[in-house]
Amino acid sequence: MKIKKLVVVGVGLIGGSCALALKKAGAVDEVVGVGRTRTNLDTARERGIVDRALTLDMPWAREAADADVVLLAAPVAQFPPLFEALAPHVSDDVAITDAGSTKQDVIAAARGTLGDGLASFIPGHPIAGTEHTGAAAAFPALFEGRNVVLTPLDETHDDAIALVTAMWQACGARVSTLEPERHDAIFAAVSHLPHVLAFTLVAELAARPDAAAYFDHAASGFRDFTRIAGSSPEMWRDIALANREALLAEIDGYGDALAAARALISEGDGEALAEMFEQASTARRAWEARRVRPVPEDKG
Amino acid sequence: MKIKKLVVVGVGLIGGSCALALKKAGAVDEVVGVGRTRTNLDTARERGIVDRALTLDMPWAREAADADVVLLAAPVAQFPPLFEALAPHVSDDVAITDAGSTKQDVIAAARGTLGDGLASFIPGHPIAGTEHTGAAAAFPALFEGRNVVLTPLDETHDDAIALVTAMWQACGARVSTLEPERHDAIFAAVSHLPHVLAFTLVAELAARPDAAAYFDHAASGFRDFTRIAGSSPEMWRDIALANREALLAEIDGYGDALAAARALISEGDGEALAEMFEQASTARRAWEARRVRPVPEDKG
Repeated sequence: MKIKKLVVVGVGLIGGSCALALKKAGAVDEVVGVGRTRTNLDTARERGIVDRALTLDMPWAREAADADVVLLAAPVAQFPPLFEALAPHVSDDVAITDAGSTKQDVIAAARGTLGDGLASFIPGHPIAGTEHTGAAAAFPALFEGRNVVLTPLDETHDDAIALVTAMWQACGARVSTLEPERHDAIFAAVSHLPHVLAFTLVAELAARPDAAAYFDHAASGFRDFTRIAGSSPEMWRDIALANREALLAEIDGYGDALAAARALISEGDGEALAEMFEQASTARRAWEARRVRPVPEDKG
Repeated sequence: MKIKKLVVVGVGLIGGSCALALKKAGAVDEVVGVGRTRTNLDTARERGIVDRALTLDMPWAREAADADVVLLAAPVAQFPPLFEALAPHVSDDVAITDAGSTKQDVIAAARGTLGDGLASFIPGHPIAGTEHTGAAAAFPALFEGRNVVLTPLDETHDDAIALVTAMWQACGARVSTLEPERHDAIFAAVSHLPHVLAFTLVAELAARPDAAAYFDHAASGFRDFTRIAGSSPEMWRDIALANREALLAEIDGYGDALAAARALISEGDGEALAEMFEQASTARRAWEARRVRPVPEDKG
């Protein structure tokens, strides 16, 4: 697999790390970076992440005409105008993919803007990241052993699917596919809901007049439970709203489960409470045991 | 500070580590271990944690008569009969303390059983632990830099408070005091509630017919958020029921906060949602920055 020309829109941690990984693997000849700010693009050029760089006020979308792959790694909320700009330049010979954490909203944006170019679009979600952002934070090993989920459309060309699969595999990732709706439902449960729960807990504590007394006694259980509450507020606002329906369903299901737990505590039903804790503990330990290696920080 | 004779009831991770730390500091002459099973006590003797060992079917409570400190480090649910057995042997010259995670229930048990001996009782809560249990898991550095919260009663002798404070300081811990009700309210919020939330999330996921699909896509955010769901179901059942009132109040307050977050998502109020996430993120980062050293695993 060799990509002659890769266009990365949003040369941040994800887009930059993908470019670096492909370069390290000898799987790409030329990387063109596209971004909002010249400063970040300069960093990307200095670090050898991109060979050429264009800001969004330049005719960047023309670069898609002779590219093999265009990777949208900008914040998802910016996708609609990016798709619109790309539409006139998309041929059957290019694969368009993205790195957004939600898929149904991205697909809806693509359907509304890409036209015939939709056949070149293969939505994706690399399950990787760190708490750092920007081209300065990119590193080639970010995707090693990580999962990348693709959610092909009925319209997507087989060639586009094969090329984007090979691209992520060249970055060291494992690639799997899901239906877009299924993707959003699963990540609502295992990622978006936990983030909302953690943000809610810390915000509620922080709003108390005597918050310091609580934080002063918080220990390592609190530390791990709330780590994700230190995540980017803007990014998680966008994800929560983009995946609203699935997330609301998860919040409601969780509310029911919490009400059931509350009832057991209120009634003093120690047997049923221990049984529920035991189910959780057993499942959590089994999950941990199946993870064969330590998990680097990711955005999930 | 020198303890001539220490009686540890429950020579597990906490009780055993306290004994080892005091021995290492040269702060204790003799440690008598008391426990349910001979096997664990044999381990404690082999490891030099205790000098003598008695099982609960032996006349162990007599050992309190000439002891300086009796540390109850058994599960809290076992305290009432332990207090009853101790009552006839408690003089003003001994300090009785404990290592339970909840304080009002322990104090109620002590009030109902210790009689005049109550003046010798100084309730305590060392905020430390690991996921391992038993005398085999004990190590002298467990309490170094950790917090120990004491919740003195109006009746407690100053001498008992001073001695138990000095004991934990000799183990390397920082000692502070709280009103018992305040202790239980604070730990309901920063420890017991997060445990219930994590247990509930994992149990709910595990009960789904397609649970594997969810767990297969869970990443490091999920890993940290749910780590405490791998904790001991029995211990956490006891804590949840022992601190029922404070925990129910926290669950209700949290339910209200989650309903408010749900409303923002449902209404698509991105500005208010980002503001709430920002409050959490800022508070969480400030809390992390105040923690001057990495936190070893603890039970909190």
